[in-house]
Amino acid sequence: MKNLKKFFCLASLLSVSVSMQAQQALFNSSQVKSPEIHPDNTVTFRLYAPGANEVTVSGDFLPAQQSVANLTKDENGVWEYTTPEALTPELYMYSFGVDGLRMMDPANVFMNRDVSTVTNIFLIDELGSRAHLYKVNDVPHGTVSRVWYDSSGFKMKRRMSVYTPPGYEDSSESYPVFYLQHGAGGDEEAWLALGRTAQILDNLIAEGKAEPMIVVMSNGNAYQEAAPGETSEGFTKPSMNVSGMNKGEIETYYPEIVNYVDKHYRTKADKAHRAMAGLSMGGFHTLHTSKMYPDLFDYVGLFSAAIFPFEGSENIPVYEDFEGKLKTQFEKNPKLYYIAIGDKDFLYDANKQYREILDKNGYPYVYYESPDGHIWKNWRIYLTEFVPKLFK
Amino acid sequence: MKNLKKFFCLASLLSVSVSMQAQQALFNSSQVKSPEIHPDNTVTFRLYAPGANEVTVSGDFLPAQQSVANLTKDENGVWEYTTPEALTPELYMYSFGVDGLRMMDPANVFMNRDVSTVTNIFLIDELGSRAHLYKVNDVPHGTVSRVWYDSSGFKMKRRMSVYTPPGYEDSSESYPVFYLQHGAGGDEEAWLALGRTAQILDNLIAEGKAEPMIVVMSNGNAYQEAAPGETSEGFTKPSMNVSGMNKGEIETYYPEIVNYVDKHYRTKADKAHRAMAGLSMGGFHTLHTSKMYPDLFDYVGLFSAAIFPFEGSENIPVYEDFEGKLKTQFEKNPKLYYIAIGDKDFLYDANKQYREILDKNGYPYVYYESPDGHIWKNWRIYLTEFVPKLFK
Repeated sequence: MKNLKKFFCLASLLSVSVSMQAQQALFNSSQVKSPEIHPDNTVTFRLYAPGANEVTVSGDFLPAQQSVANLTKDENGVWEYTTPEALTPELYMYSFGVDGLRMMDPANVFMNRDVSTVTNIFLIDELGSRAHLYKVNDVPHGTVSRVWYDSSGFKMKRRMSVYTPPGYEDSSESYPVFYLQHGAGGDEEAWLALGRTAQILDNLIAEGKAEPMIVVMSNGNAYQEAAPGETSEGFTKPSMNVSGMNKGEIETYYPEIVNYVDKHYRTKADKAHRAMAGLSMGGFHTLHTSKMYPDLFDYVGLFSAAIFPFEGSENIPVYEDFEGKLKTQFEKNPKLYYIAIGDKDFLYDANKQYREILDKNGYPYVYYESPDGHIWKNWRIYLTEFVPKLFK
Repeated sequence: MKNLKKFFCLASLLSVSVSMQAQQALFNSSQVKSPEIHPDNTVTFRLYAPGANEVTVSGDFLPAQQSVANLTKDENGVWEYTTPEALTPELYMYSFGVDGLRMMDPANVFMNRDVSTVTNIFLIDELGSRAHLYKVNDVPHGTVSRVWYDSSGFKMKRRMSVYTPPGYEDSSESYPVFYLQHGAGGDEEAWLALGRTAQILDNLIAEGKAEPMIVVMSNGNAYQEAAPGETSEGFTKPSMNVSGMNKGEIETYYPEIVNYVDKHYRTKADKAHRAMAGLSMGGFHTLHTSKMYPDLFDYVGLFSAAIFPFEGSENIPVYEDFEGKLKTQFEKNPKLYYIAIGDKDFLYDANKQYREILDKNGYPYVYYESPDGHIWKNWRIYLTEFVPKLFK
């Protein structure tokens, strides 16, 4: 075989990549590094676009009053912009504008989809910062699974994402379960991708700040089996579709999910070891599910929650006797009723009105108010605040 | 509560999406449908780019001799191109070129990453076609998990993707296991995303053409814990990095993975119920692992495999005594030794030379030759050919 040893060489394997990329790429962006995060937490964005007349970058890393920043072109056709100041640790999103056309950064393969919009992402990390919880760190990692269950309520297969904590596979212990719901336009992928749930749980557990727990992120869209692209409808464009939201099905059939999880995972299957939280529409689901089934969850979290049922929900049992059901729920002394919202959230007033009802009746709750509005930055913050309070 | 019912309305929830998108999008692409797959399997691509001078589309849906097609602009600034003929059922990839700049289709959130290049994808489906296996159909779905294990060989945590077949959770049966390896530049996500492994398995099992089996897709990069973005290195740009490939570690430590899977899943833990296959570098790993451990796998698949060890692999036990180890492997009569390659693959000659060695020694194998080269289209085909032959 000696004569064969030189037959195959590294170079030939690498050449495939080069030629494949050459076929695909209409320009040479391979030398361009973007975004480049400097040691002082300033960031440089770069785009190779020699023919462009104007290149801008937009994203939530810019100051609130600034919608875009202009990149400047060097002699090689590479456009560049460096933030004038260090960025605060956070998971940021951005995209480029080239002569008015929005585009992704071809040098950055990391992106998030929010409803039907895809943006590039980058993380400014700093030890001890909250953003450090959003990073994959060198700590034990839980398992993330996409699981299908048969819903007899919806008469369809439905998909959920399940996080089991580090060590789950190698122990015979039972674990508490945290049910976490997305908002309108989201799906069972949203909390994992945009919410960094697996990273937040891994890190909080590693730091001893959270109990090891199972996290169940089910699909909260009544009309939908699973996330776009994961159903027999094929690659259909995601949309804000809240059809069926006022029928109370998600809430009514929620025990199906709990039963599935209790049957298929090693859970502590009682109220004291169950939490439910959700953002926006998912907060609405959490509010109404937890009061419809007051013996199910001892921990309830409303993140920027939609509160009140709307037109068309009359005669739906879930939504009837709002205050009566609340009374029953609070008579059973839930261990934690948590409300969080941003001071610029369009649901701020509805939450204020709801808190007035709770106050009026003397129902205890924990309230957390943050700056900004109805955005994922806030929902990640609320998750990091809520999880350490569970199952203690 | 009557007076509160109208407080919250659907419109206000939907308005969030609209305003968020308006902030992000520099142009109005929401009316644009792209790609539009017509009933006759022609496809229209569209891009809203009123300021552009030239818009092209490129991708593997074009005839081999054509690298790009030109879109034409209508009075609303929407560029459009319709394929002159129906496309053959297949999973296709494409991207746009706008005045020479490559960009994703903003109307299509579905994309695949191949090494460091992201492209949009679409599927032309037809009942009975092979591409129908790549689609999510209305059949029972297996569970897909991302699992971490401790490698004592590599002295690091390593990540793998695991598919368990429909019904796994609700039975007490044991299952055969298929170990499936990616190529250079890939990782434990590649076979799921680019290879459509979960869909292919779901569909073949539903059609009764494949045995229910567990599929394990581990990370085959010696230097790497997990896919880019999933390690403590953060959002680092993926690259073709084959460092460590000639050290034999992936092959030598492979039994760790088998042991982990046998310990944590209900497996039929013997040679007759284990298969291993891989593409390119993963085919190399399969070839050398299966002959180093001739009692491990009864089914072996080399898809466009790199065959021969290269410079720098001298004195690595895995690669020593190539023909002697092969002899031992074939004396133990593996149930299937399968070799597949494209007639334009740069590894075609190496595979031909390898088949001559097998022929010379009278070692039986099944050979499958397809058109085209070293591309995912072929690897999906080989998977659909290989899986029905397993564990029968």
